[in-house]
Amino acid sequence: MSSKSKQDAATSLGRRQWLAGSAGALATMGLGAANGQAHAQAQSAASAPALPVAPAKPPLPAYAAWKDAGAVIIHSSSTIETKRQAFGNGLITPAEQLYVRNNLPAPSASILENRDAWEISIEGVKQPRVLSLRELKTMGLETTPMVLQCSGNGRGFFPNKPSGTPWTVGAAGCVVWTGVSVRQLVESLGGTMAGMDFMTGTGGELLPEGLDPKSIMVERSVPAKAMADALLAWEMNGVPIPLAHGGPLRLIVPGYQGVNQIKYVKRLAFTAQESDAKIMAHGYRISPPGAKADPSQPSVLEMNVKSWITSPLPERAAAAGQVQIQGLAFGGQRAVKRVEVSVDAGKTWKEARLVGPDLGKYAWRQFVLAAKLPAGTHTLMSRAIDTAGNAQPEQRLENVGGYNNNSVLDHAVTVTLA
Amino acid sequence: MSSKSKQDAATSLGRRQWLAGSAGALATMGLGAANGQAHAQAQSAASAPALPVAPAKPPLPAYAAWKDAGAVIIHSSSTIETKRQAFGNGLITPAEQLYVRNNLPAPSASILENRDAWEISIEGVKQPRVLSLRELKTMGLETTPMVLQCSGNGRGFFPNKPSGTPWTVGAAGCVVWTGVSVRQLVESLGGTMAGMDFMTGTGGELLPEGLDPKSIMVERSVPAKAMADALLAWEMNGVPIPLAHGGPLRLIVPGYQGVNQIKYVKRLAFTAQESDAKIMAHGYRISPPGAKADPSQPSVLEMNVKSWITSPLPERAAAAGQVQIQGLAFGGQRAVKRVEVSVDAGKTWKEARLVGPDLGKYAWRQFVLAAKLPAGTHTLMSRAIDTAGNAQPEQRLENVGGYNNNSVLDHAVTVTLA
Repeated sequence: MSSKSKQDAATSLGRRQWLAGSAGALATMGLGAANGQAHAQAQSAASAPALPVAPAKPPLPAYAAWKDAGAVIIHSSSTIETKRQAFGNGLITPAEQLYVRNNLPAPSASILENRDAWEISIEGVKQPRVLSLRELKTMGLETTPMVLQCSGNGRGFFPNKPSGTPWTVGAAGCVVWTGVSVRQLVESLGGTMAGMDFMTGTGGELLPEGLDPKSIMVERSVPAKAMADALLAWEMNGVPIPLAHGGPLRLIVPGYQGVNQIKYVKRLAFTAQESDAKIMAHGYRISPPGAKADPSQPSVLEMNVKSWITSPLPERAAAAGQVQIQGLAFGGQRAVKRVEVSVDAGKTWKEARLVGPDLGKYAWRQFVLAAKLPAGTHTLMSRAIDTAGNAQPEQRLENVGGYNNNSVLDHAVTVTLA
Repeated sequence: MSSKSKQDAATSLGRRQWLAGSAGALATMGLGAANGQAHAQAQSAASAPALPVAPAKPPLPAYAAWKDAGAVIIHSSSTIETKRQAFGNGLITPAEQLYVRNNLPAPSASILENRDAWEISIEGVKQPRVLSLRELKTMGLETTPMVLQCSGNGRGFFPNKPSGTPWTVGAAGCVVWTGVSVRQLVESLGGTMAGMDFMTGTGGELLPEGLDPKSIMVERSVPAKAMADALLAWEMNGVPIPLAHGGPLRLIVPGYQGVNQIKYVKRLAFTAQESDAKIMAHGYRISPPGAKADPSQPSVLEMNVKSWITSPLPERAAAAGQVQIQGLAFGGQRAVKRVEVSVDAGKTWKEARLVGPDLGKYAWRQFVLAAKLPAGTHTLMSRAIDTAGNAQPEQRLENVGGYNNNSVLDHAVTVTLA
């Protein structure tokens, strides 16, 4: 089903049919306990005889048909993962390899026909304004390389199989965003109103009729201080942002998990409270095992320090002997200070060398360790440490949604060299 | 004609037919006076009734069919330019926008079927070796962002229309190369033999029968000291190098003009003399007006300091009022220290702000100057200055081949704002 068709379905059909049509999107919303319900509904609807049967290996959806099919795993029409063996050493992830994770079906591609006409409402500032993208482009220019990562990246390593897409490492990429600084924009509008402790972004997805908007809309809040490095961005990797990645305009909050990077952003509000939309209040929470998600639990905000090996892999064979062990590491909010690699399943560690230029604290670093590995089976691990001394933990933090996994053990790889 | 078909033609047909089949490639070899002859021959052959007539606007050739047709100007099957208005602010040029300039028809795509089996002969070192790409990958890993530019970039601004492709600014991009350091490779082979003052790379293109190989082969020499930062590269922008850009293996010499970045490199030799191949001895020379190219004239080696504005442009309109004047600047061998912008055709200058992280001295920098421009026509100019104080000159250095143009005046743009 094309993006356009989905859009049509969302406007013309009722609630049940829309849910079925966007089963993939809803099933992987990661709304904790709430998600189970949507998932069950979607599955039930999908198995109704009148609806098309999903193929075992879905094709690239129309709005992402330009992706490199050989470099990605297509989980669903709204969840596409970069293959671990596709990550290279080019510092920046090419758009055609970059993962996709849409919480709702993408809007109609018609919103890209006149990008400059896209409007965003800036609220909670002393001089609130509705600004067009054309106007934003006259107000400033910044370019920020940044790790973009779904908070569920690494969920696939949880043995209890949390609801949601079982990403391993490929729901992440390092991409370059260009737009206007939110801090400067806010200054030009007189600053924020008093007591506005949160920066709340609202996505411009078309919502289906018959549902409470709060139950489905994409609206997230982050601490207002995050505006310092945030962008309203119109370019990704040097070209206008594709629809699949939130074009024409996306809120970029460097160092924060992907769900906070609001696509098709139509409202940026400085607010006294966090959004009460379901995706904020009852979704993307670090819920202890057995608990239901609620606003008292930590939200999925800042990224944590993390790394993984990209070569050698079972899918990227190397011969025994001299091997260049390669991988990627990032700190989330802080730069990576060093990366250590173990070739003996964590018994001993050596410091890897960081390769290529430093693109700033929000970008990832490439690392390499030259090692002599005899023929046989080896378990390779990496461990990143940020500039504040935070190191990746051995074990994942168990949580219902399978979020924020930066476990050293989970990201280890076992390879057999001949 | 597809790349594969051309390859077949080159092996099975005679000299005259091959020249006709690769008319575009030869006509734009830029071999100075020698080029005139090839050009005339090619034109003559192309007008023979038995041969296909070239369309006025050629399509993307098969080996570059994956390029973004909307972002490029297709001069010929071997010369494809990035549109000035396609350059964005992503630091790195996406592969699908990057220019192509092949001196000979690309080899058959079959050379990519087993990339790791590609072999290169390393000569002029104490322990010469033939090494496979598989072996090179075990020997080291470096990643270098670098401006890749055809020495004829800017030729289109020469009023006397030198022979060769009339590139304006788009025969350039900033791309990321990953491979093994040539310096480290040479050290591991015992170092260079005494007196080997040049590093000579030879391309692996298939040469047509019946021609003296020296008259057609791609073989270039640079000073041996350039090995310090040189790479034998297998990745471009994080993916295996496409055929159009020299995969599976390319010699990368940061800071040097594109012709020295040998594609499909099959031999890397440290030599006492410069190559006597025609492309080195009688091509790519800075020949004074009226002179024939010869080895006594300077060769096209190091890039010089340069910049150009990318927005606003006649093709990328802006409204009168506040405008963010944007562009790209690089130093060639040295980092850019600063960029100045004039909005009054060079009468007065202001220092622009450099945008985004510094990717190293061989990469370009993005610059921006916020300016208030009233409705009307404005001539905008940029002038880059490198860390050694070298500034772009006002005027181009006249030369027969139209090389090395970094003139401020030639790169100015005149825009009318409403």
